[in-house]
Amino acid sequence: MYCKDRSNIIASITNFIANNGGNIVYIDQHVDREQDIFFMRLESEFEDDSFSIEDFKILFKNTLVDQFKIKWRIYASGIKPKMALFVSKYDHCLYDILGRYNSGELFLEIPFILSNHLDLKPIVDSFKIPFYHIPVTKDTKKEAEQKQLELLTSHNIDFIVLARYMQIVSETLIDKYPNKIINIHHSFLPAFVGAKPYHSAYKRGVKIIGATSHYVTEELDAGPIIEQDVTRVSHTHSIDDLISKGRDLEKIVLANAIKLHTNRKVMVYNNKTLIFS
Amino acid sequence: MYCKDRSNIIASITNFIANNGGNIVYIDQHVDREQDIFFMRLESEFEDDSFSIEDFKILFKNTLVDQFKIKWRIYASGIKPKMALFVSKYDHCLYDILGRYNSGELFLEIPFILSNHLDLKPIVDSFKIPFYHIPVTKDTKKEAEQKQLELLTSHNIDFIVLARYMQIVSETLIDKYPNKIINIHHSFLPAFVGAKPYHSAYKRGVKIIGATSHYVTEELDAGPIIEQDVTRVSHTHSIDDLISKGRDLEKIVLANAIKLHTNRKVMVYNNKTLIFS
Amino acid sequence: MYCKDRSNIIASITNFIANNGGNIVYIDQHVDREQDIFFMRLESEFEDDSFSIEDFKILFKNTLVDQFKIKWRIYASGIKPKMALFVSKYDHCLYDILGRYNSGELFLEIPFILSNHLDLKPIVDSFKIPFYHIPVTKDTKKEAEQKQLELLTSHNIDFIVLARYMQIVSETLIDKYPNKIINIHHSFLPAFVGAKPYHSAYKRGVKIIGATSHYVTEELDAGPIIEQDVTRVSHTHSIDDLISKGRDLEKIVLANAIKLHTNRKVMVYNNKTLIFS
Amino acid sequence: MYCKDRSNIIASITNFIANNGGNIVYIDQHVDREQDIFFMRLESEFEDDSFSIEDFKILFKNTLVDQFKIKWRIYASGIKPKMALFVSKYDHCLYDILGRYNSGELFLEIPFILSNHLDLKPIVDSFKIPFYHIPVTKDTKKEAEQKQLELLTSHNIDFIVLARYMQIVSETLIDKYPNKIINIHHSFLPAFVGAKPYHSAYKRGVKIIGATSHYVTEELDAGPIIEQDVTRVSHTHSIDDLISKGRDLEKIVLANAIKLHTNRKVMVYNNKTLIFS
Repeated sequence: MYCKDRSNIIASITNFIANNGGNIVYIDQHVDREQDIFFMRLESEFEDDSFSIEDFKILFKNTLVDQFKIKWRIYASGIKPKMALFVSKYDHCLYDILGRYNSGELFLEIPFILSNHLDLKPIVDSFKIPFYHIPVTKDTKKEAEQKQLELLTSHNIDFIVLARYMQIVSETLIDKYPNKIINIHHSFLPAFVGAKPYHSAYKRGVKIIGATSHYVTEELDAGPIIEQDVTRVSHTHSIDDLISKGRDLEKIVLANAIKLHTNRKVMVYNNKTLIFS
Repeated sequence: MYCKDRSNIIASITNFIANNGGNIVYIDQHVDREQDIFFMRLESEFEDDSFSIEDFKILFKNTLVDQFKIKWRIYASGIKPKMALFVSKYDHCLYDILGRYNSGELFLEIPFILSNHLDLKPIVDSFKIPFYHIPVTKDTKKEAEQKQLELLTSHNIDFIVLARYMQIVSETLIDKYPNKIINIHHSFLPAFVGAKPYHSAYKRGVKIIGATSHYVTEELDAGPIIEQDVTRVSHTHSIDDLISKGRDLEKIVLANAIKLHTNRKVMVYNNKTLIFS
Repeated sequence: MYCKDRSNIIASITNFIANNGGNIVYIDQHVDREQDIFFMRLESEFEDDSFSIEDFKILFKNTLVDQFKIKWRIYASGIKPKMALFVSKYDHCLYDILGRYNSGELFLEIPFILSNHLDLKPIVDSFKIPFYHIPVTKDTKKEAEQKQLELLTSHNIDFIVLARYMQIVSETLIDKYPNKIINIHHSFLPAFVGAKPYHSAYKRGVKIIGATSHYVTEELDAGPIIEQDVTRVSHTHSIDDLISKGRDLEKIVLANAIKLHTNRKVMVYNNKTLIFS
Repeated sequence: MYCKDRSNIIASITNFIANNGGNIVYIDQHVDREQDIFFMRLESEFEDDSFSIEDFKILFKNTLVDQFKIKWRIYASGIKPKMALFVSKYDHCLYDILGRYNSGELFLEIPFILSNHLDLKPIVDSFKIPFYHIPVTKDTKKEAEQKQLELLTSHNIDFIVLARYMQIVSETLIDKYPNKIINIHHSFLPAFVGAKPYHSAYKRGVKIIGATSHYVTEELDAGPIIEQDVTRVSHTHSIDDLISKGRDLEKIVLANAIKLHTNRKVMVYNNKTLIFS
C-alpha cells in the first residue's frame, strides 16, 4: 500500500490490525522524500478463521483507506499464482524455469506454455505441460493476440513471463496485465535498449555485461526494473562468448524476478519498483 | 530493541509512540524463527521539544520494556559519536578514513589517533589530528593498556576502530567497549583466521579473496561480522598482488562498517549482526 | 606444459612448431616466480593432414621435452570428452547440466548418469540418457566401487562430475582419475569444509556465501580449486534461503568448471590450478 | 603491437628476440577474428647492457615491422611515467590517488596538480605537490587551454588523469595526448552519458550503479573503456546515497585504470581496449 506521507499512519494501521485480532508478522516501510509518499508492506496472521479476507477488505476500505487515501492490494497467502510462460526459440530460460518448477522451488502454477514457434515443444512435452503454438506474422498479429487473450482468460492467468519471447506484446495485453508481464532483457538497462544488445556491448567494448528483468510497459525496454545482474567480460570474449555468459545472467535474473513477484515483494510506483526484503 | 516474539508487539510500540506525540519515520523488524526473537529498529520524531529523551526513556521503561522484557537502546539523532582510531604501520585505511572524514562523509568526530609506532605520525599531523604514540612490548603491555584506557576515557570515546592495528587488544578493553571495537581483517572470514591471510589464500589457490569487518570479541577474528566484500584473483596474481588488491577491499569494507555503526544500523545478537536498511 | 624456467624456452617451442609447419593460434604463459616454474598453453594448427598428432608427440618428446624436462599434455581439438555424471538426490545441478547439454552449450558427451538413489531417474529418463543405480551402503561400498569402475572403463570415460553426489569417492577412483573428478562444494572454500556448510554459514553470520568447484583429492574438500563464486546474504535470510540462493551459485560454478575443463583451460600444479584465458 | 593476422608471426617475433640475446619473460596474444587482427604484448630482458633500446628499435623496424606491417610501441621498464592530475571541486578521487601515491602504490610521478578552482588547494598543499590554478570561463577558455599546454609540455607530462575535472577538455589537448587522457565517468557507460548520471540512475530506478574509466576522445563519454565496476542499490537509497556509494566505485575504478595504463597493460584498437593480464 502507499499514500501521501502523514503523521500516525504506521500507528493507525498497526492499531487497526491489532484491534481486529491480527498479529503482524512482517512490516517494512519506505518514504519517498522527493515525492512525499509513504509505502508500506505488511504481513499479518488472523487466528479467527471466521474473519474472512473479504470482511477485512470492506472494513479496511471504510476506515483507513478512505481516511488516508491509500492505494492498496491484499493477498491471501497460500494460494499459488498462475503463470503463463511465453517462449520462442531460446531454451535456456525455459529449461531453468521448468527445472525450478519441478523441484518445487517456485511458488506458482504453470497452466500452459505458449510459443510462436514449434522448436521448444519437445522440451515442454518432456515436462508434461500443455504447449500452445500461436504463430505470429504481420498479417495474423491481431488474430494471434485474440487467441492469446482467450487462453489467458480461460486459464485465469495471474501474470505472464516472457522468457526470451521474441515478439513485441500488444498494448491490449499490457493494459489487461499492468505490471503483470515480466520480461527479461539481455542487457544492463538502460544501456543497449532494443535488439542485439550483446552485439552492441561487444562493439562498445564494455568490461561488464548485464541482464535486466522488468515489467513490460508500452515503451520498449523502459518499464519498471525488478532485478538486474552483471558479469565481467574482456577483450578475449567474442560475441558468442558474451551471449553464452549472458545466458546464465538471464536465467538467474529472470528466476529472481519471478520469485520476487510471486512472493509479493514488488511494489510499483512512478515507473520504478520497491523491492521489500 | 529485541525481545521474545509475541503477538501485538508492533502495534503496542507504534501505539505507544503515537500516544506520546511521536511520528514514526522509519520502522523495520525481523523475527528470528529459530530463536523466536523479535527485533525492531524504529526512528521517530517528536514535535514537542519539552518532551526530552530522558522522559521518554523512563516512560518506555515503565510500560513496554517491563511488559515485554525488551532489551533496547535509544539514541538522539544529531549527536556525532566520538571515534578513536588505532593504527600501526599500514597507511591505506588511515588515508581512506581521514580523506572521508575531511570530506564530511563520516558522521563522527576523531578526538585522537593512537599508534604503537611512529611511522604514520606525519600523515596524521598533515590532517591536524592529535597523535598519541603508545608503544607496546611484552613487558609494557599492561602499562600501555592503562594509558590507552585513560586516553579513551578522558576523551569520552564512544567506539574504537582498529585500522590494521597490529596488536591484540586486551580483554579489559573489550569488556569496556562491548560491540564497540571495530576491526578489519584481511580475509573472507571464517577462512584464513589469524596472521598472514593473503599468504594462506595464495597457497590455497582461491579464486576470490575478501575482507571482513567485525566487532572484536575475546576469540580472535570470531566476533560478529558487520560487513564483507570480495574480489576475483587468478594464478597470475602474486602474493604482493593479493595484498594490493586486498587493500582496496579493506578500505571499503572498513568504511562501510564504520558508517553502519555510526548510523545505528547494526544490532548484535548471538554473536551475529542484524544490518537494517 | 610446464618446466623449470629457463632462457629461450618460448622461442625454442614456437620455433619448433613453425619449423614443423604449425601456425600458433593461441599462446599464453605464466611464470611462478616463487617456484621458478614456467607454464605455457599453446594452440596450433597444422595444414598438412598427413602430419599426425602421434608423429608430433614423438618428435616433440625427442627434442624439446628431453632438453627442457617438460611435463606436458597434448589434445587434438574436435574430439568431445566423455563425462560421467554422479548424482544423489539434489536435482538442481542435474537439471542445469542436462539443459545445457541438450542446448549444445557443452562440448562433451554423457554416456551415462550414475546415482546411489533412484529419486532422479525420471528426470534422467526424460532426457533419454542411460541411468545406472548403484546403491552404496557401508557393507556394499567395495562392491559398488567395483561396479562404478567397470562402468567408467567400459564407456571410456574421460572425466567424472560429482553433481552434489553425497558419497565420498574412494582412493582407487581418485588415483585412476587424477585431476579428472570435478566436485561442487556448497561453500566458499576453505571456509566451511565438510557437511552442512550453509548451516555453518548461517550460524557464523557471514554476509556473503559461496560455492567452489574443485578437483577431488584424497583430503576432503582440499583439492585444486577450479572456480568459485559468491553472493550476498543478510540476517533476513533463513538457512533455507541460503540453500536456495546457494543452488544458483552451485549450478553456475559447476557449469563453468566443466567448461574450463573440457576446453583444456585448466592446468594443475602444486595443488592449485592455472586457468588460462 | 598489432598487425594483420598471418602465419608464423609469433615464431618470427620470439625468434627475433632470442637471436638478439633477449629472454622473453611475458607473452600474451589475442586474435580479433572479426577484424582478422593479431595483437601481442611481450616483455623481454636483455642481458647485454650495451644493446640499447634504440638499437633494438632500429633493428626491429628494419626487419619484422616492415615485413608484417606491425603497429607497435616499446617501453623501457623502470622509468616512471609523469602524470598530470586535473581536478575541480570533488576531493574523493584526489585523496585516493594521493594516498596511494604517498604509499608508493603507484608507479608514476606527479609533477603537478591543476584545477579550475581553488577549493582543493589545501589538500594538495598538505601533500606537498605543486598546485596550479587555471580558471576556465567561456571567455578565457582559449587562454586557459594555452596555459595548460605550456604546463604539460614544460613538465614533460606523459599522460593526464581527469579526477572528476568538471570541464570538457579541448580537441587540441586530445589530439596532443591520444589515448593518454584518462577520465572517470560516474556511470556504467554507455548508460547515462553526460551530466548528472546519478540523478538519471535514480530516476530510472536501476538496481545497480557503476563507474567507468575511459580514454578521452572527441565524442563525450564515448572513448575506449579501460575499466568498469558496479555496486547494488535499492529503492531505499536516495540520490545522495547513490552519489556516496558511487564515490567508492569512482576511486577504485580510476585507480585501477591508472595502474593498468602505467603498467602498459592497455592496448587501444578500434575505440576499444585490450587489457592484458
